[in-house]
Amino acid sequence: MTSKKLVNSVAGCADDALAGLVACNPNLQLLQGHRVALRSDLDSLKGRVALLSGGGSGHEPAHAGFIGKGMLTGVIAGAVFTSPAVGSILAAIRAVAQAGTVGTLLIVKNYTGDRLNFGLAREQARAEGIPVEMVVIGDDSAFTVLKKAGRRGLCGTVLIHKVAGALAEAGVGLEEIAKQVNVVAKAMGTLGVSLSSCSVPGSKPTFELSADEVELGLGIHGEAGVRRIKMATADEIVKLMLDHMTNTTNASHVPVQPGSSVVMMVNNLGGLSFLELGIIADATVRSLEGRGVKIARALVGTFMSALEMPGISLTLLLVDEPLLKLIDAETTAAAWPNVAAVSITGRKRSRVAPAEPQEAPDSTAAGASKRMALVLERVCSTLLGLEEHLNALDRAAGDGDCGTTHSRAARAIQEWLKEGPPPASPAQLLSKLSVLLLEKMGGSSGALYGLFLTAAAQPLKAKTSLPAWSAAMDAGLEAMQKYGKAAPGDRTMLDSLWAAGQELQAWKSPGADLLQVLTKAVKSAEAAAEATKNMEAGAGRASYISSARLEQPDPGAVAAAAILRAILEVLQS
Amino acid sequence: MTSKKLVNSVAGCADDALAGLVACNPNLQLLQGHRVALRSDLDSLKGRVALLSGGGSGHEPAHAGFIGKGMLTGVIAGAVFTSPAVGSILAAIRAVAQAGTVGTLLIVKNYTGDRLNFGLAREQARAEGIPVEMVVIGDDSAFTVLKKAGRRGLCGTVLIHKVAGALAEAGVGLEEIAKQVNVVAKAMGTLGVSLSSCSVPGSKPTFELSADEVELGLGIHGEAGVRRIKMATADEIVKLMLDHMTNTTNASHVPVQPGSSVVMMVNNLGGLSFLELGIIADATVRSLEGRGVKIARALVGTFMSALEMPGISLTLLLVDEPLLKLIDAETTAAAWPNVAAVSITGRKRSRVAPAEPQEAPDSTAAGASKRMALVLERVCSTLLGLEEHLNALDRAAGDGDCGTTHSRAARAIQEWLKEGPPPASPAQLLSKLSVLLLEKMGGSSGALYGLFLTAAAQPLKAKTSLPAWSAAMDAGLEAMQKYGKAAPGDRTMLDSLWAAGQELQAWKSPGADLLQVLTKAVKSAEAAAEATKNMEAGAGRASYISSARLEQPDPGAVAAAAILRAILEVLQS
Repeated sequence: MTSKKLVNSVAGCADDALAGLVACNPNLQLLQGHRVALRSDLDSLKGRVALLSGGGSGHEPAHAGFIGKGMLTGVIAGAVFTSPAVGSILAAIRAVAQAGTVGTLLIVKNYTGDRLNFGLAREQARAEGIPVEMVVIGDDSAFTVLKKAGRRGLCGTVLIHKVAGALAEAGVGLEEIAKQVNVVAKAMGTLGVSLSSCSVPGSKPTFELSADEVELGLGIHGEAGVRRIKMATADEIVKLMLDHMTNTTNASHVPVQPGSSVVMMVNNLGGLSFLELGIIADATVRSLEGRGVKIARALVGTFMSALEMPGISLTLLLVDEPLLKLIDAETTAAAWPNVAAVSITGRKRSRVAPAEPQEAPDSTAAGASKRMALVLERVCSTLLGLEEHLNALDRAAGDGDCGTTHSRAARAIQEWLKEGPPPASPAQLLSKLSVLLLEKMGGSSGALYGLFLTAAAQPLKAKTSLPAWSAAMDAGLEAMQKYGKAAPGDRTMLDSLWAAGQELQAWKSPGADLLQVLTKAVKSAEAAAEATKNMEAGAGRASYISSARLEQPDPGAVAAAAILRAILEVLQS
Repeated sequence: MTSKKLVNSVAGCADDALAGLVACNPNLQLLQGHRVALRSDLDSLKGRVALLSGGGSGHEPAHAGFIGKGMLTGVIAGAVFTSPAVGSILAAIRAVAQAGTVGTLLIVKNYTGDRLNFGLAREQARAEGIPVEMVVIGDDSAFTVLKKAGRRGLCGTVLIHKVAGALAEAGVGLEEIAKQVNVVAKAMGTLGVSLSSCSVPGSKPTFELSADEVELGLGIHGEAGVRRIKMATADEIVKLMLDHMTNTTNASHVPVQPGSSVVMMVNNLGGLSFLELGIIADATVRSLEGRGVKIARALVGTFMSALEMPGISLTLLLVDEPLLKLIDAETTAAAWPNVAAVSITGRKRSRVAPAEPQEAPDSTAAGASKRMALVLERVCSTLLGLEEHLNALDRAAGDGDCGTTHSRAARAIQEWLKEGPPPASPAQLLSKLSVLLLEKMGGSSGALYGLFLTAAAQPLKAKTSLPAWSAAMDAGLEAMQKYGKAAPGDRTMLDSLWAAGQELQAWKSPGADLLQVLTKAVKSAEAAAEATKNMEAGAGRASYISSARLEQPDPGAVAAAAILRAILEVLQS
């Protein structure tokens, strides 16, 4: 079976992809009749050296993403994983020459097809009198014994684009750029690893891996690598890769030693999650620094992909200060990341979290504290007694754990009470309970009670009068509605609490009676809880169930009413 | 079966990924004891508004990639697809407050867990006296009927980071930023589509799709979308998406009309190839412009992923000039791309390719031209006669098509000769043949002969003396070796040509005889071709075959010697 792709046609893939890149990047233009993208400000490059690169498509954002001031002048794209046409390479060379550049450097990844086609275009252009040099980049560190064909060109080529681009922008001449770039190219190595293969549009995946294998040392055309290894942790795989890349018995190793300074690239080969990319980046930084290597800059992202291959490549480039300046030089290339010109190794990677604010000392009114403890104990025993009933109600509409959740909260409060008397200050008590429920009750219920209690605590900081308690209820209800997005009538615990809150408004009137009002509030909450059985769920998990199946009251509303009743009973006694 | 991932542990995924991001970005620091990343220059933000965002991990580069000057001050990350801890959100708020910021805006994607946890932290921070506002972003355009929970927060949130960041950087106050951001958030819409699902580390994929289906309107947590559609072309899928997003009967549509100006985002949900991303970007630009919509800016890349989901989301934000200024404002955030401040719609996307240089008029020496034609005809008939023999030789070492390839070249030359007499100028003749073989012969052989002929033509431009012909042979051989990386002795066509070239050096001596030297050269070439049967292949396709299996001469070398013999025979007659 061929692969599933978001394309218009297999034949038009490379054209459409380049057209999209150019359409979305005002710094680029297509060269009519060719699969070539060029800087749209080409005519501002008079007297400068032009840099052209390219190769098969399927490596996006390479290479067109690296066109811009300070990087490439243009690229020539072939079909997917296929060398570009000689005629198009020649057309690109002619176009940049016509714009007044003084010579062209071709930056070519080391593959036979690319060498031949770029080489041929170069010879043709030279025959027309255009100065053209060519550098062939081979940064692959996979093969321990060098083949005649040399190292393959991989993600390190992007660093060459950057270095050459900075030199060209600084007005350096063609021969000198070629010379410097050839030196830099020898100081780097790249190694890839992948969890699976990729597939060219219209084709099957290029190789198969079993579920416990990863492929090491692969290229960027879906070709198999140098060996298969058993799946391991990110740390182990990175260690293996760095060992292989820096092993001096490996003919294609990069000579990184303790004390070396490097630019490191962690390149997404296409389909790996950026979560994993970050994990690999972390492992690479730790492993390199553990080897005494100084990381001058780290580039993490998708630079040179192999279609949707779920893997990464690591590139190491040995750098000194002058080379770093070229890496740091400004560019407008869309796919070059924002990289701060600051060393990775040696800087402080964390800051100390601020201490929790000190609490005001508790007023230690032993009587009040004791009463609070009695209220809480009654609330807990009530909830524990309701566990099965609440779970049963919840089974009809949710996942059947509402009783369990409330019991968990109750047991957490009981444990906490054993540690010592609760704060006598209502504001402090509610704040403490808020943190406790958030942590121990968990889920949305924990967060909602946490919100309710945090908000309710605020009006009680200044006063603890009956109007303040009513205001506390209002604040709690408001926060719950605001962040939870439930309203009264949505068949949630808010229904009971809201009904109670309406009655508690009476506490704001002068001379209101604590118990008389609270009694009415509890009754109203219980009636509201019972009434939820006629409601359609408007929020929470039950909102996914059709109302026809909801014939019982909402367990959250029942629990909230029961809590209020427990409070009333202790205060009455 | 659980998914294959490059991780150290399922439990540590989110921590490791954030640590990697921070380790590789000197602009960031972790807050000790929390999964929080903050700007490392926090202490330079005195008097400014701080912007905090975050949510579950698995959406990288969101949100930590958008920390930087001009964007976010910090982010709080939860476990994969899980809301962050309230305690960590609060710690982040305290840290930015302690650094001297005058207030904090929480930018929260609209999910219940995020709303509750950020809301609770906000209430707690306000209780400590820290000014905190919160905006909840819902940009999802999938649901045509609005649910109470509202639109989900998707990739458009990144645009809010940008807008709010530019405002905060400009010194705008907390309330005003919140107000402006709420207006902007209402002017956008996002819709996703995917070819397949993603899987949380340690878990199975979240849904299954058959080979001919795509999922439309999905969120960013691997949840299924609003409907499944049959696989279609990129153009058709983009049209469907834009129709859905802008349909005024869709309650969550974005009110884009002909004449509207938009910022468009094409976001990789994680695992799609960047080739396809470019194709989708191209289709989106064409479709929007076809509707009369002006695209002010286009952002194409990975902004808000759903782990490795192979899909995309499109975001449209209605913009005016003041809003564009905020989008264009500078930022150091690593994951914000280099976007040129130039309108996408209305600019020229291509430039005319330069014309081919005019050829010098042919000297039309009819006699010379006729002789050239005779030579070529003999070469062609020779190669056609050798087709089966060359294929047979090639079957032992390659893919058995060497004869076919050379016959293809021969027939192309025959066709070309029918069009008229060949150029009498040797340089022009070789150049013409170079282009012809490159196009019609194809493959590496076509490119290598093309290279040989192009390079050989150069010394013949000025003179056509015997020394010039020897120099032409030298130039051709040099180019072939340089770009093809084969050397004499590598069992390739170079072996015959090189042997002949050595003999042709004699042409450089005064008084050398054309035919005498050429006869020796042809014999030497034939001997060299025969000798390849004892050689190990050092380049080309045969280099992958063990030498023990190579008992026949190399077909390319045989063909080259035969070509030289054919030339000699005509010149002798």
